[in-house]
Amino acid sequence: MRLGAIEAGGTKFICGIGNEHGEVIERISIQTTTPDETMGQVIDFFKNKEVDAIGVGSFGPVDLDVSSSTYGFITSTPKKYWNQFDLLGELKKHFDVPIGFDTDVNAAALGESVWGAAKGLDSCLYMTVGTGIGVGAVAEGKLIHGMLHPEMGHILVRRHEKDAYQGSCPFHGDCLEGMAAGPAIEARWGRKGVDLAANSGVWELEAYYLAQALVNYILVLSPQKIIIGGGVMKQEQLFPLVRKHTVKLLNGYIQHENILKNIDHYIVPPGLGDNAGLCGALALAKGC
Amino acid sequence: MRLGAIEAGGTKFICGIGNEHGEVIERISIQTTTPDETMGQVIDFFKNKEVDAIGVGSFGPVDLDVSSSTYGFITSTPKKYWNQFDLLGELKKHFDVPIGFDTDVNAAALGESVWGAAKGLDSCLYMTVGTGIGVGAVAEGKLIHGMLHPEMGHILVRRHEKDAYQGSCPFHGDCLEGMAAGPAIEARWGRKGVDLAANSGVWELEAYYLAQALVNYILVLSPQKIIIGGGVMKQEQLFPLVRKHTVKLLNGYIQHENILKNIDHYIVPPGLGDNAGLCGALALAKGC
Repeated sequence: MRLGAIEAGGTKFICGIGNEHGEVIERISIQTTTPDETMGQVIDFFKNKEVDAIGVGSFGPVDLDVSSSTYGFITSTPKKYWNQFDLLGELKKHFDVPIGFDTDVNAAALGESVWGAAKGLDSCLYMTVGTGIGVGAVAEGKLIHGMLHPEMGHILVRRHEKDAYQGSCPFHGDCLEGMAAGPAIEARWGRKGVDLAANSGVWELEAYYLAQALVNYILVLSPQKIIIGGGVMKQEQLFPLVRKHTVKLLNGYIQHENILKNIDHYIVPPGLGDNAGLCGALALAKGC
Repeated sequence: MRLGAIEAGGTKFICGIGNEHGEVIERISIQTTTPDETMGQVIDFFKNKEVDAIGVGSFGPVDLDVSSSTYGFITSTPKKYWNQFDLLGELKKHFDVPIGFDTDVNAAALGESVWGAAKGLDSCLYMTVGTGIGVGAVAEGKLIHGMLHPEMGHILVRRHEKDAYQGSCPFHGDCLEGMAAGPAIEARWGRKGVDLAANSGVWELEAYYLAQALVNYILVLSPQKIIIGGGVMKQEQLFPLVRKHTVKLLNGYIQHENILKNIDHYIVPPGLGDNAGLCGALALAKGC
């Protein structure tokens, strides 16, 4: 099977050709400028590649309601030119193959559950912590959508008593994304996270917020594996701190060995590494 | 189809006979004492009733992992005599029919999605606010289980700045259940909720906590309908307050008419009224 994959991001579109084993045999990175320009290059890339299906994991918000007249659109994004853009429709004009369409983080969650850290499990959660915080989830073997799609990056967290930073979310101020995404770290500490690697206070506080979110995700979804990627998580010292705070907050309530004994194997980086997004799109294509 | 239903609660077991349309034609209420005594009466009730299947919605925690050696057990409950009791096994000894087994709140969520307030939708959330706070959820047409089962009643909430009550949860102190379940209301205000109906401050504060939970559930699961039942919600003045706080906290972030225009029809009492639990068990039987 020859599958096409598109990781449609706000900065770049990564397009790839792969197979049903999650192997990527060719890829290209295209800058996200205008829909005309970017999609033109995307379409050129896939032309004559004779793929059997295409999967798209897109930045959002997107309309995933198949009964909606704007299904497959990028909807109310602040990203110039892309507001209300019919991404799926544009692809369908050029490629007469099944096209799977979902959020970037749902795609990554699916990819991890098919070939990555959650392989063989029927539930997992994938969180990316970078410019924003996005989360996708598989439950009972299926990606969760619902009314719109999850927006777990914006859940409410408790402010640390010594943290005076007001939060960067234009909607909620000090929600998770407002307190813990990359821009919040930079605004609070005056430097980018990558330049703060040696400052342990930065990562204790970051873990304090991320762990609150994980605790709530565990209590709401009970995922069998939690995978965290994204630029901020390149600070690998975060993993043990996040695990420590998560276990502490749950305080023995969830009587499961994943929490009580195997937390190091429960909260993990992506099994697919930096390929989580593209392989996720490949998994969407496979599932068409 | 003749279906058996068991709503297995910590205070009483309600057993019923019904059909695939959710109609209950006979019911009995049995006090929850010891497994021997209570289960004896349950088994007597169903004997000679010739049901085609039985559904059980049980108090918990329960083991729902079909691959586990304790599948169908009530596990680490503080409820005397019932700790590690093989509820499903006991029923199987006496009835050679398919038996569906889940948490009480998952059962209620399923019942509401089949015959109640969420009929025709493929996702919904059912929350009960009473002695404790329990939540069940349907996503993509399926009940969510995962690693164990959701325990959404214990998610973290932000304390109100004027609320000095320390919280009643033995594990987390001031989690949702610790701040907003019936015992927390009584401990904070010195009287039971039912005797505080006229005190608007009680219900503003209660709604403040419940709405935080709903906001997080909406952001994590994006359910198409939220149903709230249980003893505390008999205070119907809570509904408009909970809706108001939920909309305020989301602050326009979720661009969906359910939130922006139809919140009165989005956060609702059970369509099945006090039958939500028993009909939920019936729905489990139907789905076997």
